[in-house]
Amino acid sequence: MNTFFLWSALVMGLAALGLAAYYARRVLAMSQGNELMIEISSNIRAGAMAFLRREYTWVAVFVTAMFLLIGFLLDDGWLRALAYLAGALLSGGAGFVGMRIATAANARTTEAARTGGIVKALPLAFRGGAVMGFTVAGFGLLGVALGYLIFVELSGFEVGRGAEIVAAIGLGGSSIALFARVGGGIYTKAADIGADLVGKVEAGIPEDDPRNPATIADNVGDNVGDVAGMGADLFESYVGSLVAPIAFAALAFTGAVYQAEAVIFPLAVGAVGMLASIIGSFLVKPKSDSDLASALHRGTNTAMILAAAGVLGLSYLMFGSIEGVNPLGLFLAVAIGLLVGFTIGKISEIYTSDHYKTVKEIARQAQTGPATVILSGIAEGKRSAAYSVIVAATGIGGAFWAGEMALGELGGIYGVAIAAIGVLATLGITIAVDAYGPIADNAGGIAEMTHLPPEVRQATDALDSLGNTTAAVAKGFAIGSAAVTALALFSTFTQAVGNAAEASGVANPLANGINIMNVETTIGLFLGAMFPFLFSGMTINAVGRAANEMIEEVRRQFREIPGLREGKEGVKAEYAKCVDIATAGALREMVLPGSLAIILPLVIGFVNVEALGGFLAGALVTGFLLAIYMANAGGAWDNAKKFIEAGAFGGKGSEAHKAAVIGDTVGDPFKDTSGPAMNIVIKVMTIVSLVFASAFIG
Amino acid sequence: MNTFFLWSALVMGLAALGLAAYYARRVLAMSQGNELMIEISSNIRAGAMAFLRREYTWVAVFVTAMFLLIGFLLDDGWLRALAYLAGALLSGGAGFVGMRIATAANARTTEAARTGGIVKALPLAFRGGAVMGFTVAGFGLLGVALGYLIFVELSGFEVGRGAEIVAAIGLGGSSIALFARVGGGIYTKAADIGADLVGKVEAGIPEDDPRNPATIADNVGDNVGDVAGMGADLFESYVGSLVAPIAFAALAFTGAVYQAEAVIFPLAVGAVGMLASIIGSFLVKPKSDSDLASALHRGTNTAMILAAAGVLGLSYLMFGSIEGVNPLGLFLAVAIGLLVGFTIGKISEIYTSDHYKTVKEIARQAQTGPATVILSGIAEGKRSAAYSVIVAATGIGGAFWAGEMALGELGGIYGVAIAAIGVLATLGITIAVDAYGPIADNAGGIAEMTHLPPEVRQATDALDSLGNTTAAVAKGFAIGSAAVTALALFSTFTQAVGNAAEASGVANPLANGINIMNVETTIGLFLGAMFPFLFSGMTINAVGRAANEMIEEVRRQFREIPGLREGKEGVKAEYAKCVDIATAGALREMVLPGSLAIILPLVIGFVNVEALGGFLAGALVTGFLLAIYMANAGGAWDNAKKFIEAGAFGGKGSEAHKAAVIGDTVGDPFKDTSGPAMNIVIKVMTIVSLVFASAFIG
Repeated sequence: MNTFFLWSALVMGLAALGLAAYYARRVLAMSQGNELMIEISSNIRAGAMAFLRREYTWVAVFVTAMFLLIGFLLDDGWLRALAYLAGALLSGGAGFVGMRIATAANARTTEAARTGGIVKALPLAFRGGAVMGFTVAGFGLLGVALGYLIFVELSGFEVGRGAEIVAAIGLGGSSIALFARVGGGIYTKAADIGADLVGKVEAGIPEDDPRNPATIADNVGDNVGDVAGMGADLFESYVGSLVAPIAFAALAFTGAVYQAEAVIFPLAVGAVGMLASIIGSFLVKPKSDSDLASALHRGTNTAMILAAAGVLGLSYLMFGSIEGVNPLGLFLAVAIGLLVGFTIGKISEIYTSDHYKTVKEIARQAQTGPATVILSGIAEGKRSAAYSVIVAATGIGGAFWAGEMALGELGGIYGVAIAAIGVLATLGITIAVDAYGPIADNAGGIAEMTHLPPEVRQATDALDSLGNTTAAVAKGFAIGSAAVTALALFSTFTQAVGNAAEASGVANPLANGINIMNVETTIGLFLGAMFPFLFSGMTINAVGRAANEMIEEVRRQFREIPGLREGKEGVKAEYAKCVDIATAGALREMVLPGSLAIILPLVIGFVNVEALGGFLAGALVTGFLLAIYMANAGGAWDNAKKFIEAGAFGGKGSEAHKAAVIGDTVGDPFKDTSGPAMNIVIKVMTIVSLVFASAFIG
Repeated sequence: MNTFFLWSALVMGLAALGLAAYYARRVLAMSQGNELMIEISSNIRAGAMAFLRREYTWVAVFVTAMFLLIGFLLDDGWLRALAYLAGALLSGGAGFVGMRIATAANARTTEAARTGGIVKALPLAFRGGAVMGFTVAGFGLLGVALGYLIFVELSGFEVGRGAEIVAAIGLGGSSIALFARVGGGIYTKAADIGADLVGKVEAGIPEDDPRNPATIADNVGDNVGDVAGMGADLFESYVGSLVAPIAFAALAFTGAVYQAEAVIFPLAVGAVGMLASIIGSFLVKPKSDSDLASALHRGTNTAMILAAAGVLGLSYLMFGSIEGVNPLGLFLAVAIGLLVGFTIGKISEIYTSDHYKTVKEIARQAQTGPATVILSGIAEGKRSAAYSVIVAATGIGGAFWAGEMALGELGGIYGVAIAAIGVLATLGITIAVDAYGPIADNAGGIAEMTHLPPEVRQATDALDSLGNTTAAVAKGFAIGSAAVTALALFSTFTQAVGNAAEASGVANPLANGINIMNVETTIGLFLGAMFPFLFSGMTINAVGRAANEMIEEVRRQFREIPGLREGKEGVKAEYAKCVDIATAGALREMVLPGSLAIILPLVIGFVNVEALGGFLAGALVTGFLLAIYMANAGGAWDNAKKFIEAGAFGGKGSEAHKAAVIGDTVGDPFKDTSGPAMNIVIKVMTIVSLVFASAFIG
């Protein structure tokens, strides 16, 4: 029967890709609008694709180096290197497809809004996002299932050995995700700040005005940051959440009666979740203009409920007849994961949506100036992070308890690991709901740049504003899933160290666990907790430097191109120069922090494995806290500004508005660069440690 | 011979108090200047003393509750409760004496600057600070030495039992320090922001102008925050750094040949450091106006060198003849502590002084507006925290190695514990150099309020500006010492748990250490890492709320008191109302975050001791990081503003200056409320766990 579940995963992975292709064809079949719209859209697409190409060129160097390192250093090195490469290619491919369609859907969404209003535009934008969502989830599930088929089922290796090879797929995804998040995050905010500070503040022209030389770069940024970056991030979380329990069960449950089922269970959950996502996505069809939010909620809620019901059935089907196993525990662990993801997302919504009091209070503080706006945003962001951690810690405890209830003593960690899949089971539709935001944002930009009637912009703005809330929720969710996934990978890492030590006949350095009272662990803990601070400082500075270059260039164009600022007929800004500058700046700035995140755990691991344990734990906790704090503070400032723009406390142009704009600018690298990049940092550090565990022992 | 060292500590403690009394008499013998100066000075004193009285009233309730809790719950409960009460009284007493003299020295410093310029004013301000410094250090050393004499030497108890009673002195100091830091920090920033936002920004009158109703409260704030708060903080660190190695040696070295010496060694180091401080303090006599900074450096550097030399001699004298002990290791551990404290202070200086590039760069960023100032301050603050942690982690490793070199395997933790004394050995002079800052600040305020000639203000400004740098260094130092002390207390806590388990015949829950791989520890680690974020969010919000009340009151007075804003002859602001509001606000806001810091570890400890271990470790690392990050970011913004005021990037009144003022306001609660309070949080949590260790076992 286990073969049946493996094949289900393969089939559902393919089905997801089929759905993505179907959505892509439906998107591409729509009209792109008039000539100018086509031109601007193709400029954005060209810029986004140029960035991706140059990013992938650099990443290829990095991936090659890692490929060789894995091949030469590890047992089964070249098999693992192959799995690693497959993970990298799948993640890169998902990014490419998602970006291609998102940049094709933008003008089409504008045109749909022009001809049919919101009711026609939302499903189109959603389908554009769904291409990304189901490509990411489909590639993820298919990749892990294929890896499992090849290295576990067909290879004849014992299951632990095969599972460790499969885990390298996760590391491949991480490598791409790391640079996609960091580079994309720097790009999007450098372009945004550059466009805003010179365009809106100095030149006094509106957002997305075609006179602004940085406006194309700004729209490109929405795609490379929010589409490609988010996609790669969640691909990694998804793959990580699948491989962690597979590898853990393969390594830790040797000889247990339930091992075979426990190893395949994650893929079965993935298949059920995918089916639920597909069904849910068909429900996103707004009946009227006021039905937007509920249409999205209908889709995601249905998917979650179906997934939960499916997992309940699955648990009893797979484990019901095994002596000593309580299937209810397995279901509960997955359900707790779902609940944790949902709750952390909800906390993000409460702290970042202007329907709740925090954002209103921050907006009120804007009346006493920028300092009080910033202080209250920082304070509320920190509090929201604290509450999210309490939820995560409770969830970890609950999942551990559920795992023990299901499988006995060893089952606790497995429970935590499968909770991570719970968070991510309905990933396809989650990404779809999130990735439609930048499409709507771009569509609004195109409406502005092509001087369409204001009601078109109003329609796209309505889509965009809804997208901002779903994006904040998705960010909280992405971070929550990253933390739980990293914890699962961390536990699997400790198991892998033990198995490697046994295999090579040396003493297991973690035989007594990872003891904080050992000085090596303490030092590791300090250094690990330190790294997210260093990383966040580095990436904020990177945005500052790249934005400064952009500011200089925009100023130069306004100065040197006659008639540009006045909007003289036939005078065009040199958009491509700004796109180039953002691209070059982002790529230059991503290398150091990105590389450190992979090199540091390797160096520490080769010096002392217990120190590495402390390091990973320290980085996990502070990374999680900083990620949520920065994402929520940034989101709250953004919406406080929008709340004032909607008329509160004096509205647009008031002193309160100016103060809120400053808060929003501070929040930009918080929520779109440093915060989200932290997700990857905590995952990539644990997965690189897991893959290299055997090398540290040697 | 060990009795000789105990008596040396007692004698040096008394000598420090004698020196403080001598300095106090010299300060009080100086002239207070004209009638108006006397009046303003006495207003400030009355406000500061009123705050202290009301704070102590509240704290008395808390101390009584803890007294009863300790008495009823713990073995030797009433003895420990007595020691706890003694610690609380000593800390409170030191705060009282220091404030009394600091508020007496302010007008006298103004008068000295008027009659004799800087050369006459500096020694006076320094002596005022030195009263605080030597009272704190003297009470600390004398208190621990007396406790040792009574509970270890005279009681006839075995040494471990006696030492655990002595440790309760530290908890007493913590209780006072916690509320002094939190309450004082909220007070000082609420008054400062209230005075600045309405006075400087809205009414356009200069700082310290007597027309501003909040100006007395602002000057009171300097005293309650920087004098009483800092003093209580360092009293606690000092006592903690003494009791941690005493208790650890008493509990862990049972049966070792070197136990007796290892137990008394901390007090001997304290005596040597005190002597060195006293000698150093006599060297702070500037020969000319340009000799200010070097006069202070001469004093502190001499003290540090003398202390190091003394400890080297002491190590050989005490341990030279003991078989198997390498005295060099003991000296090295203390010296590493000294070096770590010095280096972390130096990092703070590099990141917060305008002699280095960071502050200049932040000032340069002010040209593109407040958002870029704030982002670069945040980024640099985080980086400085990361580097400080690297230094601390290296120091911990080094001290551990030195401890093992000295005493073998068990000596590592002892090495870390005595390194903490190294950081604090010359505390008397360190506080003196730091506490003179607020005196100079107050002196400048009095010069302004009494309309003295501008050269007087220039002299006090020169003192104040030097004080800002020494304050930033002292803050870095205070945090570094807090982290190392907390780590030493943490290790002692684990030892105390083991001993308590053995004594009551139950299994030691920490027999296998504190294993991060246990789910309880993981949950504890998450929650512990979370708490400093929550605490910092709460205290920043608290400052905001208290400042808002102050703003309303100042606005009301300007509105309702005719002639006040215009400065009409005979019209006076209602200063006392503002003082009252700041006092009430600070006291109300300190209760919740302060109480949580003590209650949370108790609750977690009673539930699960391993979770408490994870909790303490998590809180220690993120608390340390946040403390340094916030202190340095705040200091850097402050000095970037001053750098612009001195003429850079357009000088006072420029757009860059306005941006820098916003940065400075954001930094205010960072560097003077949340950041410093974090020091206490990490210490108080470990020491409360240490004292209650035996109760958790029952």
